[in-house]
Amino acid sequence: MGSRVRAVVAGATGYSGRELIKLILTHPGLELVGAYASRASDPTPLDIVHPELIGRTSLACRPYREEEIASLEPGLIFLATPNEFSHEVVPSALETGARVVDLSGSFRLRDRLLYPAFYGFEHLRPDLLGEAVYGMTELARESLSGARLIANPGCYPTSIILPIWPLIDADLVEEDQPVICDSKSGVTGAGKAPTPTTHFVEVSESFRAYNIFRHRHTPEIAQGLELPLESRRLIFTPHLLPINRGILSTIYLRLRKGVARGDIMRVWRETYADSPLIRIFPGAQMPEIKFVANQPYCDLGCAMDEATGQAIVVSAIDNLLKGAASQALQNANLALGFAEGTGLL
Amino acid sequence: MGSRVRAVVAGATGYSGRELIKLILTHPGLELVGAYASRASDPTPLDIVHPELIGRTSLACRPYREEEIASLEPGLIFLATPNEFSHEVVPSALETGARVVDLSGSFRLRDRLLYPAFYGFEHLRPDLLGEAVYGMTELARESLSGARLIANPGCYPTSIILPIWPLIDADLVEEDQPVICDSKSGVTGAGKAPTPTTHFVEVSESFRAYNIFRHRHTPEIAQGLELPLESRRLIFTPHLLPINRGILSTIYLRLRKGVARGDIMRVWRETYADSPLIRIFPGAQMPEIKFVANQPYCDLGCAMDEATGQAIVVSAIDNLLKGAASQALQNANLALGFAEGTGLL
Amino acid sequence: MGSRVRAVVAGATGYSGRELIKLILTHPGLELVGAYASRASDPTPLDIVHPELIGRTSLACRPYREEEIASLEPGLIFLATPNEFSHEVVPSALETGARVVDLSGSFRLRDRLLYPAFYGFEHLRPDLLGEAVYGMTELARESLSGARLIANPGCYPTSIILPIWPLIDADLVEEDQPVICDSKSGVTGAGKAPTPTTHFVEVSESFRAYNIFRHRHTPEIAQGLELPLESRRLIFTPHLLPINRGILSTIYLRLRKGVARGDIMRVWRETYADSPLIRIFPGAQMPEIKFVANQPYCDLGCAMDEATGQAIVVSAIDNLLKGAASQALQNANLALGFAEGTGLL
Amino acid sequence: MGSRVRAVVAGATGYSGRELIKLILTHPGLELVGAYASRASDPTPLDIVHPELIGRTSLACRPYREEEIASLEPGLIFLATPNEFSHEVVPSALETGARVVDLSGSFRLRDRLLYPAFYGFEHLRPDLLGEAVYGMTELARESLSGARLIANPGCYPTSIILPIWPLIDADLVEEDQPVICDSKSGVTGAGKAPTPTTHFVEVSESFRAYNIFRHRHTPEIAQGLELPLESRRLIFTPHLLPINRGILSTIYLRLRKGVARGDIMRVWRETYADSPLIRIFPGAQMPEIKFVANQPYCDLGCAMDEATGQAIVVSAIDNLLKGAASQALQNANLALGFAEGTGLL
Repeated sequence: MGSRVRAVVAGATGYSGRELIKLILTHPGLELVGAYASRASDPTPLDIVHPELIGRTSLACRPYREEEIASLEPGLIFLATPNEFSHEVVPSALETGARVVDLSGSFRLRDRLLYPAFYGFEHLRPDLLGEAVYGMTELARESLSGARLIANPGCYPTSIILPIWPLIDADLVEEDQPVICDSKSGVTGAGKAPTPTTHFVEVSESFRAYNIFRHRHTPEIAQGLELPLESRRLIFTPHLLPINRGILSTIYLRLRKGVARGDIMRVWRETYADSPLIRIFPGAQMPEIKFVANQPYCDLGCAMDEATGQAIVVSAIDNLLKGAASQALQNANLALGFAEGTGLL
Repeated sequence: MGSRVRAVVAGATGYSGRELIKLILTHPGLELVGAYASRASDPTPLDIVHPELIGRTSLACRPYREEEIASLEPGLIFLATPNEFSHEVVPSALETGARVVDLSGSFRLRDRLLYPAFYGFEHLRPDLLGEAVYGMTELARESLSGARLIANPGCYPTSIILPIWPLIDADLVEEDQPVICDSKSGVTGAGKAPTPTTHFVEVSESFRAYNIFRHRHTPEIAQGLELPLESRRLIFTPHLLPINRGILSTIYLRLRKGVARGDIMRVWRETYADSPLIRIFPGAQMPEIKFVANQPYCDLGCAMDEATGQAIVVSAIDNLLKGAASQALQNANLALGFAEGTGLL
Repeated sequence: MGSRVRAVVAGATGYSGRELIKLILTHPGLELVGAYASRASDPTPLDIVHPELIGRTSLACRPYREEEIASLEPGLIFLATPNEFSHEVVPSALETGARVVDLSGSFRLRDRLLYPAFYGFEHLRPDLLGEAVYGMTELARESLSGARLIANPGCYPTSIILPIWPLIDADLVEEDQPVICDSKSGVTGAGKAPTPTTHFVEVSESFRAYNIFRHRHTPEIAQGLELPLESRRLIFTPHLLPINRGILSTIYLRLRKGVARGDIMRVWRETYADSPLIRIFPGAQMPEIKFVANQPYCDLGCAMDEATGQAIVVSAIDNLLKGAASQALQNANLALGFAEGTGLL
Repeated sequence: MGSRVRAVVAGATGYSGRELIKLILTHPGLELVGAYASRASDPTPLDIVHPELIGRTSLACRPYREEEIASLEPGLIFLATPNEFSHEVVPSALETGARVVDLSGSFRLRDRLLYPAFYGFEHLRPDLLGEAVYGMTELARESLSGARLIANPGCYPTSIILPIWPLIDADLVEEDQPVICDSKSGVTGAGKAPTPTTHFVEVSESFRAYNIFRHRHTPEIAQGLELPLESRRLIFTPHLLPINRGILSTIYLRLRKGVARGDIMRVWRETYADSPLIRIFPGAQMPEIKFVANQPYCDLGCAMDEATGQAIVVSAIDNLLKGAASQALQNANLALGFAEGTGLL
């Protein structure tokens, strides 16, 4: 098939890193040449870190070292690393000449002044913030083609911006009314570190809201919907579901007088006409998490009370795939000139 | 202990019936004298119907027969039976002289014209609809004392009316703004009948919204909050959680200018000052389902963006207890003159 | 790629059928030309039967009709249908000229006299019983090449025969000692029909043994291990896990004096040297269900008390894949001359 | 009711400690006067440690200090603390004059030489090892009456010794044959500390065996069954279930020639004639975890192949109750002269 693009995954010990590795291993145009951990540790075979990889790769996961990675001459580097770590290593990763897809939040917000409050660190590379393409694939295809640095979107923002931005852009949404996003996520969204809030017993047979009014993804969603944070129109409440993977968002918004459910469907269909990974549910059947688990899709559905203009949009994604690894692959595909769904469909 | 009140449970094969039986068996003032099924069937020992009752009762569950029940001379009859069945047997149950607590929806709505659309049958007893006390215990104590017929509230309405009605009653809530109730329930709420939507595989590792804009509990919630259905101010979206029991409701409402979070807490504290089964969460810790599972409490918490008046209320109950069986016991306790928490605390 | 083999799936509404469809849709050498249900029903688009297929196929699931299927000129027919149904339609399916892979139990047992007791019907086609190749892929490759009728193994038998048969065949196992198979399966193994035992609430937060001493897979396992049923050496206890998919079997057996753990590993390595879908766990890390869920592998591990010769073998598969659909694909691949892992790796 | 016995719980932050607190709060003869943590920490209200206790107690959990506890003049001290911690504080706890129930393993094994290998510390109090009553309640009632120090049994041992010891004691079990205990436990058994193996995502939708041939409970079970460790007749394999609470043990044993299933039932009925917390399942219905979850019972059932003498015993308990806290209460009840089931039934 000709030579494949040499790909490196940093953050290989986490859940998103593991999904990236699995996707790269079956991608016809990529070759996995390196796997790295953001924390110092002895090199460990990937199939010991993730026993499900037994028989599928003989690579080891090694501590991140910039020169070693450069020496691999990668064409593509995925950073599934903590925010501050990505912030620090993106410049040297770019210097290797590789295209860089950063799955952390460290290059997603255009307004660098938001970083201290929401990410706890001062952003030192406004130049790269300006260059980074926010990779909500279906809404950013042109910018993605040939992009050097891609800020891969957060999981919650993906589940909200993909359904809602086209409606705002088409001017269907009533101004001055809140957009209420009641989102529910599986536990992989909280990462692999064992904490009291990810303990099986604390999650199973329970359900809870968290970080009400102050989740880190709020400014990213606001930016994606062009609802200025200071307008306080965006209300985002994340919840923790007792499942491994998947996000379902129930989104309440008021549409302009005269807008009908059919208008929503029409706008979605037009926006996503050539988007193999967006699925529009036409009727009363709403998206459910099980339809997208282990799948690269974003599913969209809506119900509407036309008398009041009240719309209820339901979206579902797999937070590790369309909310992280498979969207990163979509973005890499476009940056490298592959078809968007290569290795995913 | 003096003579105990003779209690009968109809609908003993279901989940609410089972919970009622367990509560009665340990209640110091009640004696379980009969257990009945709404469907014809051979008498079956309760510990075969519900093996968890092995060693705890030797009663059998028998097909419902009005004369047989009358002959037991019950002081208390719980009907945890289907809506139409309750509608049919309540009159003869009252004729036995017992107090009747109906856990179905058949006597909850004051407007009988709503029954055909929401329950699929014509209501034939407007007189009893008028007499029935809607048993949202903490908001109805005076009417419950000595009540003959009690319409026990639905599970979703309990989780919404208990937190929100006091705020509306205290005139804290902005008029003309929607009250959005995003509710999530465990699967026992769907009953014990095996259906495609209660199949383990269809529920586990998934999550979904259902009956958007048209759930049967909508008019009951609207009635409890005095938000007329035709105002369309109430928006209620139920979801199915992959857990056995528990409901968490996330409720979005706009408060009047100048109302602060402290006002919500004050109103709740005043309203529920003498309510041992309402627990108000004072700080940032929000109610979670695990705190109320297998418990008779309704937990309340709230967060607020005071700049906009946007409040987010979080409530949690066990749908089989405060949402069904334990609230029925609270109501029976008050009707019979026992302390409200007898057998529950 | 040249012309692809035309494939039909009967039993398309069930879980195994759904997995077969997904595998065929991404298989480079197969084309899905028909989907059928064993029960009469109106034709229904596959993406309504299984909404996760939205956007992936426009085929409908139609009621099984022999002539219609013949008219499709299929090269391959998968029967993921009930036992008696498969028994009835296999002859006409073979007459189409297609290779037939039957995922039911109706052609697995060589001794037709076992059918009435274990499957509840008289087997009428001893000729086809004789012809059918029992498709435990890695142990039957030669017979599978070019096979016309393949009896695809049961899920529990796959998890037991793959690890244990090579040990018996290599004469490592003490005679006259029982082989105790304590197996645990996810709920998809019980099929898609809603029943009291597959109700979410009856399964979640619970665990149970069932059909002790009398599960239908017992004679199939006995046949595969060449432990005659009448010897009663095989003890098989299935249990139901509160998960969707996966089987883990813990198997207790006594090895001959002097046999060491290394002998087990050596026999497995030799037997499965060229088996990409068998993974041998070399050390203390044992197979777990999560390593094989949604994967086509059978994972093998063992621990041993060499002083007594007591071995404990642990195996894991995804019951819908290696225990059903992906093994059916492996078998079809071999029958058609494809590489065994085509479409699976 | 006269004065109640003053009770202290050490290890109040863990799951067993929490269950003890809930049981004591509703026990008619006990008064909770102190709650302690084994680790240094600031005093924290119990309802912040365990929000489900909101409204039920105003006690704080305080760091363990021997003099402070002595000053409370307790009549009863529960130690739900780590093994080494219990080993260290039991002597001073006894000096307060209180009866001490230790839920750790530090006083369960009569042979002190086993401690270094199985618990990692040298046992320094052989005198107290000799005095401690092993509190498998139903098999130790006489020794428990008035006991000063009670070693509360482990969860797995409870699920195995209660069903099997009476059969061994009645000489029904074939000698020289292994007793194979395939046990499955919920995650609360692993404690509250967040670890990679208790992370929700690592447990949910999975299942695994662990510590094969070398679990710490092995010598305790061997001691309880009088199967000397060196005989290697006891084979015990624990597994981790994706549920919160409950243990089910499937136990394989060979009975002597001529022993019938009825003999097992008879022995159990005789042994447990006056045991309200043992429930014997008479027929084909086997114990299941859901029947004992949140209940203080041990349920027993069995199936038998009389031709070979192969018996399969199935037992179920709630690991936090009969496997820890409620058995501790049973034992305390007997030590203090209360009826065994006080506060439990």
